[in-house]
Amino acid sequence: MTFLNLDHISANPLAPEVKDAMIQAIQSDYHNPSSQHQAGEHAAGLLEDARQKTAQLLGARDPKEIVFTSNGTESVNHALKGVAYANKEKGKHIITSNIEHNAIHRSLKRLTSQGFKVTSLPVDEGGRVDPKEVEKAITEETILVSVMHSNNETGTIQPIEEIGKVVKDHHILFHTDAVDSVGLVPLDVQELHADLLSFASNTMYGPSGVGGLYIRQGTRLFPLLDGGTQENSKRAGAENLIGIIGHGKAAELALHNMDSRQKHLAHLKELLLSELPNYIDEYIINTNLDHSLPHLVNVSIKYIEGESVMLMLSEEDIAVATKSACATGSLRASHVLLSLGLSHADAQGTLVISFGQENTEEDVYRFLGALKNIVDTLRAMSPLYKKAYQATTQE
Amino acid sequence: MTFLNLDHISANPLAPEVKDAMIQAIQSDYHNPSSQHQAGEHAAGLLEDARQKTAQLLGARDPKEIVFTSNGTESVNHALKGVAYANKEKGKHIITSNIEHNAIHRSLKRLTSQGFKVTSLPVDEGGRVDPKEVEKAITEETILVSVMHSNNETGTIQPIEEIGKVVKDHHILFHTDAVDSVGLVPLDVQELHADLLSFASNTMYGPSGVGGLYIRQGTRLFPLLDGGTQENSKRAGAENLIGIIGHGKAAELALHNMDSRQKHLAHLKELLLSELPNYIDEYIINTNLDHSLPHLVNVSIKYIEGESVMLMLSEEDIAVATKSACATGSLRASHVLLSLGLSHADAQGTLVISFGQENTEEDVYRFLGALKNIVDTLRAMSPLYKKAYQATTQE
Repeated sequence: MTFLNLDHISANPLAPEVKDAMIQAIQSDYHNPSSQHQAGEHAAGLLEDARQKTAQLLGARDPKEIVFTSNGTESVNHALKGVAYANKEKGKHIITSNIEHNAIHRSLKRLTSQGFKVTSLPVDEGGRVDPKEVEKAITEETILVSVMHSNNETGTIQPIEEIGKVVKDHHILFHTDAVDSVGLVPLDVQELHADLLSFASNTMYGPSGVGGLYIRQGTRLFPLLDGGTQENSKRAGAENLIGIIGHGKAAELALHNMDSRQKHLAHLKELLLSELPNYIDEYIINTNLDHSLPHLVNVSIKYIEGESVMLMLSEEDIAVATKSACATGSLRASHVLLSLGLSHADAQGTLVISFGQENTEEDVYRFLGALKNIVDTLRAMSPLYKKAYQATTQE
Repeated sequence: MTFLNLDHISANPLAPEVKDAMIQAIQSDYHNPSSQHQAGEHAAGLLEDARQKTAQLLGARDPKEIVFTSNGTESVNHALKGVAYANKEKGKHIITSNIEHNAIHRSLKRLTSQGFKVTSLPVDEGGRVDPKEVEKAITEETILVSVMHSNNETGTIQPIEEIGKVVKDHHILFHTDAVDSVGLVPLDVQELHADLLSFASNTMYGPSGVGGLYIRQGTRLFPLLDGGTQENSKRAGAENLIGIIGHGKAAELALHNMDSRQKHLAHLKELLLSELPNYIDEYIINTNLDHSLPHLVNVSIKYIEGESVMLMLSEEDIAVATKSACATGSLRASHVLLSLGLSHADAQGTLVISFGQENTEEDVYRFLGALKNIVDTLRAMSPLYKKAYQATTQE
């Protein structure tokens, strides 16, 4: 069987053009972009080209506002800790939401242990943060608000433009973790009122190990990595030049192919959603379908364990996720799904299906067929299902 | 003219085997090593293979003691800030040396602004830290000593084994920045008594953008990047898998080819040093030739500016450095050379020549010929040289 990737939220394949650009970079042995001789200047030019393309994708006014990092997690740590340490004289209060990625939650936990105070806002039944709640949470001490652009488990997109407006009306710094959005949905840092925006290249079919942080000119924050003068003195250390060259190509492709990519992904998602009831019953869609990423569906299948489904699909060479790959090793139910009001049992039955450019309609049907057999098998063994079924037949 | 790289301390070309491994990785579209399906497990296996090879190269007892980072700077920031934040209840005093890389100096400056105290030790006339001075500097408050293994400008190797012994006799944590040593000279974390050791892959002909930190089991430090459970929960964030696969190959090659590489590089260095007086006069060798990296010579050429020499060599497609590439943009004379007791004028006349595996004897002669012409040209225009020359003829 050929491998079927329906877990693009964890890993996208590289775009063919990105592969070519990276292979060419590998074969070219570029020098250190910080070196002052011609070989160094040539490498620096390649770095700036990738920066320029990224700025264009985000609507940044100046490429210098883009800082390349090693992944979305580094970007998020840089934004949160950088702002906190540099602005603690002004106040030590930070506002966020209950559904953020672990990189946000754990960075804030670190800051809490250092005397910062965090208000974490709930989401409504649609999985979204209410901008009015953000406004209510603001105090004299608030130095930063950080709300994610789209959630990596449900795919639900937050009202960032409205939240950004509220935050900026109060002259507070605003960060959005857009790691799972940039390159998949059009966004613009001006429209979002973002002072800081985190992104990752793999979301746009660039390499894992390349991320970035948009830092609006004039934003006060400390670097996370202190040392040399790389990245306009905002992030020290030798650059992942091969990866960044690949990312530059990925950003260029994302800008040019945004519409067609979105259409393709949305079509597969709609097909999955419309066909799903023909294959299984008793499930809950946790994705807010009015506001969500074009490629992702989060579904809780009742009476069974998502992890068992995932492993049985894996036996058939089909990859899906159950929760964030970054939370692997944790046995707890997803904090994101519990925030939505899901029961522990239902949260455990969750699958995250995320499409990519290379997926086809056939892939949807292959997945649905495999899913039906697995769900039937697991429910036949499930005490929960038997109990529910007996309850129904006794009525 | 073909490009001649004599600036390997800034950038090494990738080993051909590393290129092959990375290109193969690019073409394979590996999944996210944190994903729990088979595709994820396969990627995780590749990551662990690279970790195993790195552990072997460093003499680490357990591959889990190796944490991959995005570069040497991140490793150093992680070691210093991670130990400082996690051990501040024990004490807030850190000992280092005057000749460390900017990544160390600026991380410690950041910590100083947060209430930590730093003692920075001078070097002797040979450019080395005296272990006895380290012992004298230790107080009840000392939580960490950090001394670099080899200096990136002079190539001088420090007496790390002796310093490590002193530090561990006092039950204090010991970090060594071995970014410019690992893969070039044999070293072993047990012999060095290192609790923490920073390295970078490009030093061993692996990719820029991959580094690592050896963390001895039981060492108390906080992560620099908070978030997911990657790297045994010591460094969150998606991995640069393509780069790390390349690094694994580079580590394997370094282990197997250490002797032959050292011999080749030392031969070119000896040739340069023995031929240099036949081409130019009035220069100072700043490298401690009894204790230095096999491939690097730091030379101050009197009466002229190293930067002019570098730029004129660059016109002839020859790359050398004048100081650390990470210090580009700073007009100040190298703090490392001033620490050696060099005058500002002599420090400004400095070239750093560093050989690589692909260099040949012919390259040495091509460089020497070009250097002679450039030095003659620049001295003919140099007021300093005229003054010195007139002074001599007047005697």
